[in-house]
Amino acid sequence: MNLVLLSPSDFINSNEIVIHGKDRRLIHILNVHKAKIGTKLLVGVLNSKIGTGLITNIDKNICKMTITLTDNPPPPLPCILVIALQRPKVLKRILECVSGLGIKKIYIIETWRVEKSFWNSPLLNQKYFEKHCILGLEQSKDTVLPSIETRKKFKPFVEDELPQIIKGTKALVAHPEAKNVFPAFSGEKVTLAIGPEGGFIPYEIEMLNKNGFDIINFGKRIIKTEWFIPFAIGKLFPNI
Amino acid sequence: MNLVLLSPSDFINSNEIVIHGKDRRLIHILNVHKAKIGTKLLVGVLNSKIGTGLITNIDKNICKMTITLTDNPPPPLPCILVIALQRPKVLKRILECVSGLGIKKIYIIETWRVEKSFWNSPLLNQKYFEKHCILGLEQSKDTVLPSIETRKKFKPFVEDELPQIIKGTKALVAHPEAKNVFPAFSGEKVTLAIGPEGGFIPYEIEMLNKNGFDIINFGKRIIKTEWFIPFAIGKLFPNI
Repeated sequence: MNLVLLSPSDFINSNEIVIHGKDRRLIHILNVHKAKIGTKLLVGVLNSKIGTGLITNIDKNICKMTITLTDNPPPPLPCILVIALQRPKVLKRILECVSGLGIKKIYIIETWRVEKSFWNSPLLNQKYFEKHCILGLEQSKDTVLPSIETRKKFKPFVEDELPQIIKGTKALVAHPEAKNVFPAFSGEKVTLAIGPEGGFIPYEIEMLNKNGFDIINFGKRIIKTEWFIPFAIGKLFPNI
Repeated sequence: MNLVLLSPSDFINSNEIVIHGKDRRLIHILNVHKAKIGTKLLVGVLNSKIGTGLITNIDKNICKMTITLTDNPPPPLPCILVIALQRPKVLKRILECVSGLGIKKIYIIETWRVEKSFWNSPLLNQKYFEKHCILGLEQSKDTVLPSIETRKKFKPFVEDELPQIIKGTKALVAHPEAKNVFPAFSGEKVTLAIGPEGGFIPYEIEMLNKNGFDIINFGKRIIKTEWFIPFAIGKLFPNI
């Protein structure tokens, strides 16, 4: 937790916040930051500014801070992620990772090789998404939650929605058998499509290609999705 | 498991192997590959060649294959990793990741901010390292285990051993406050040093710098080690 992320409901007046009881932030502030009265912490308000929290009262039941907000959050990564639904326990790590990388728009989609039972997971809801994205924001000192949408039908999404979504971006789909290698960075905004475990099927690759995606080879080695994402982002963007 | 990794002890003669009983490979071959007699699988022999396994007998107790070895494993990534000891449950994912990325030489080291209790973990042994590295090899279709060494004293390692280790490589240490940005890829072999949670302390950065490391800024966002590694590898190498 390199930044303590506050929500508007933590504020008791325009510049003071209180965190109570078993809030994991209080536990972290006490046990990791080992904060005392007078300690200054980096804080941010969800979807808003970043600044300093000066602790005016703290024990195991309460933390009170005076907040001064001075800076904008870091710029978003110019990347839209289209990703096949992953195993829910992997998805939570992926959400933390992509949120930490600064991606602000994510579509989680159905594909042929997505295990159908994943869609019934009770974890596939906005509250769960938000919880894991917040961990990524706290890590990378950001405040802006990504927008996450799910699409349970591949064909209508790719044909009817994607052409609009990728407008003004370089759309790339990673495919280990592709001939084209990764293009040199050109500063463009990117839409990156990533398949499920086992990859997209040829029909899906073809559909993505027909609807504006370049099929790109990122290397021969097949890497798990949660590591492939930061690997590809490292390649695609000179700065994050 | 994109490649079934065999050990010499699986062979019953020069070109036949048997996997018995509750071996996780047999479970995977049955449940994921849904293999039958006549199915051909990609196989490799630990630290040796890659080829095809033709299944000649299979049920829940046994799998017999005729093995034809034809190809060399993929080339190693020209990268030496020097990494502070991480929380053991994170370390296992990191080992799987770096092994999948093709890194073949890893030093796990003590630094000031490494939680001292981590060194007492029963998991810090070669058998555990190997187990998790094998998962990465199976994923990325490689057979060659990385060599992993631990060093419990920072100063003698950096002063007495590192200058020799980094010879002929470009030695980089990632530091979020560094002024130099990541250098353009030059095809050189790289030694990459990565700190613990919370980073290297200034003294350690200075010591690494004095002993041949360039201090490099990989971006403002602070990313967890397990995602920083593939992110940095994506930046550093045009191909893996």
